[in-house]
Amino acid sequence: MTIQRFDTGPRMSQAVVHGNTVYLAGQVADQPAGDVTGQTAAVLKQIDDLLGRCGSSKERILSATIYLADIRTFAAMNKAWDAWVAAGHCPARATVEAKLAGPEYLVEIAVIAAK
Amino acid sequence: MTIQRFDTGPRMSQAVVHGNTVYLAGQVADQPAGDVTGQTAAVLKQIDDLLGRCGSSKERILSATIYLADIRTFAAMNKAWDAWVAAGHCPARATVEAKLAGPEYLVEIAVIAAK
Amino acid sequence: MTIQRFDTGPRMSQAVVHGNTVYLAGQVADQPAGDVTGQTAAVLKQIDDLLGRCGSSKERILSATIYLADIRTFAAMNKAWDAWVAAGHCPARATVEAKLAGPEYLVEIAVIAAK
Repeated sequence: MTIQRFDTGPRMSQAVVHGNTVYLAGQVADQPAGDVTGQTAAVLKQIDDLLGRCGSSKERILSATIYLADIRTFAAMNKAWDAWVAAGHCPARATVEAKLAGPEYLVEIAVIAAK
Repeated sequence: MTIQRFDTGPRMSQAVVHGNTVYLAGQVADQPAGDVTGQTAAVLKQIDDLLGRCGSSKERILSATIYLADIRTFAAMNKAWDAWVAAGHCPARATVEAKLAGPEYLVEIAVIAAK
Repeated sequence: MTIQRFDTGPRMSQAVVHGNTVYLAGQVADQPAGDVTGQTAAVLKQIDDLLGRCGSSKERILSATIYLADIRTFAAMNKAWDAWVAAGHCPARATVEAKLAGPEYLVEIAVIAAK
């Protein structure tokens, strides 16, 4: 099976496609201003863009792991998630609290999708 | 490759099958009473049920990620895990501490399995 | 698709191969002495060894999840990571803070790779 990498830097790739499976790097907001709802919406837009470039889409997400810097923002994150997720095509999901690479980041989402 | 989703709600699916690979949502105890050993046993029973409905089983788990609300309960979680895991068919596993969606949840387990 | 397990103990396997996909257990340093840079280098060597035994290699890593006991060691971890990762073949990656199984462990890395 082929391996195809996207946005490959010296440290990581933003997406890696193996056969029909797409692995995205954990996405944090490129511009981490605003609250959790806003950052989640920004992250989900980045995921849309990356999946599109890989030949996938949000309708084909298999699994999502959501890391929140503060679990008390669970409802605020879901406000953006619920407005975005593809009805009838929701992925398996796990959401936990974890400090992220910088204090400006309030949410990080890692996704596995089908091509 | 086909995608099949189970228990799909407005936010997530409890299981997603892509070809021969099964992704379960992070499972927390449906009735989160009791200690970590009891909650872990309950979660593992939920995993058995979900895998069975997907045409898989604990003998075919590939990878498990275990989140403990308090890492000091590592041994208490393992008490239930060790009693449950299929001898000779143990998955790759990672266990870390993370606060979960509500304080009543002491353990969450996310699984990838083969169909 | 076949399932092949490596270093299978009573609790987990260190690696599981499903068809062309390799899942490694979260790796912590076998000898957890030293700082994060040293422990990361040790973990990455263990990953090299495991992948080699599975018929894979660091050039074929698809996704890595890095757990740091203290996110402030992000740069110290990357010092070892950047020296190790295969140029042009970097995986998707997520790095978050999480307490690990024992306080002696400063970093844990879980990997999915292609065979």
